[in-house]
Amino acid sequence: MQYFPPALEKLVEQFARLPGIGTKSAQRLAFYVLNLPEGEAQEFADAIVDAKRTVTLCPVCRNLTQGDGPCAICSSYKRDHSTVCVVADPKDVVAMERSGEYNGAYHVLHGVISPMNHVGPDDLEIQSLVKRVADGGVKEIIMATNPDTEGETTAMYLSRLLKPFGCKITRLAYGIPVGSHLEYADDATLVRALEGRREM
Amino acid sequence: MQYFPPALEKLVEQFARLPGIGTKSAQRLAFYVLNLPEGEAQEFADAIVDAKRTVTLCPVCRNLTQGDGPCAICSSYKRDHSTVCVVADPKDVVAMERSGEYNGAYHVLHGVISPMNHVGPDDLEIQSLVKRVADGGVKEIIMATNPDTEGETTAMYLSRLLKPFGCKITRLAYGIPVGSHLEYADDATLVRALEGRREM
Repeated sequence: MQYFPPALEKLVEQFARLPGIGTKSAQRLAFYVLNLPEGEAQEFADAIVDAKRTVTLCPVCRNLTQGDGPCAICSSYKRDHSTVCVVADPKDVVAMERSGEYNGAYHVLHGVISPMNHVGPDDLEIQSLVKRVADGGVKEIIMATNPDTEGETTAMYLSRLLKPFGCKITRLAYGIPVGSHLEYADDATLVRALEGRREM
Repeated sequence: MQYFPPALEKLVEQFARLPGIGTKSAQRLAFYVLNLPEGEAQEFADAIVDAKRTVTLCPVCRNLTQGDGPCAICSSYKRDHSTVCVVADPKDVVAMERSGEYNGAYHVLHGVISPMNHVGPDDLEIQSLVKRVADGGVKEIIMATNPDTEGETTAMYLSRLLKPFGCKITRLAYGIPVGSHLEYADDATLVRALEGRREM
């Protein structure tokens, strides 16, 4: 039996290892790369190596950054470093920043506590958060993990852990998403929206 | 606004250029690569460059191969080089080889005639096929393009082009796929299956 040339097979294998990419998709992607001009294929390869080599974690907030020092947010004098928003993932920082409303700092946990997936507190950036709070200067910690079971568990765990340091601990509000319809809201969300109702 | 570090943004962009990969998937893939051990990320990058650099087209059948000479099939003395199976794509060669029934040679067109997509005969490996047939030694040409409009058009075009050389030109049989059910067969397939019926 004759298959693809070895170098192509190898590229297909590499793509097939990526999450959510099956063999057929991997073939499609490999063929696409094979048909790129040589310079662009090289660019792609370089992007992989560069990202792997230069992207690091910020020593303060553990968000992704480039270079050795603190990230742009942690080193900005315009931000309020006494407020720390705790998120599970670097993508959540991007989402918060996109809103344009938040002017504090972040702390990225890189996951949530999940016994099902064998992720415990020690697998997350919790030690660094505790140290940061213990070092002083943090007045409010906003728990912004996702409003699902694991996100809730993690927020609860952290709030108990950080309470002794005496700073204010808050949680993002639950409620009906802006622009959606009441009739499509699930019961749990409606209950939370009612609980959190505010005077107009 | 603060997004991902530039090197990560660049990797996301590279993935997002791949066919069928949107921004969200590209982010997921970039994060996956970022979490690979350094050696494995390097392997991935090398696979891209290697495939691009070493995979060539066989000078005889235009199938993908590695190195300068003819491909394994074209240079095998065990194959019948007087029969040429014309396919649209290297993947079709793999499919035919997997069947284990075919012992002839191939010719890969790298596409089909498709006015909608601005693909004309000159964009395909048709010149090389004509030259191959003109050089003599080919007794039968099996048209194995897909049984859709474009595949049919291409097969018709080629058969008219190659008829003058006096070799036998055949087309793969149409019919009910093995293992499927009559009730699910579309009308066109049923008509073809009836037309092509054989004595038992």
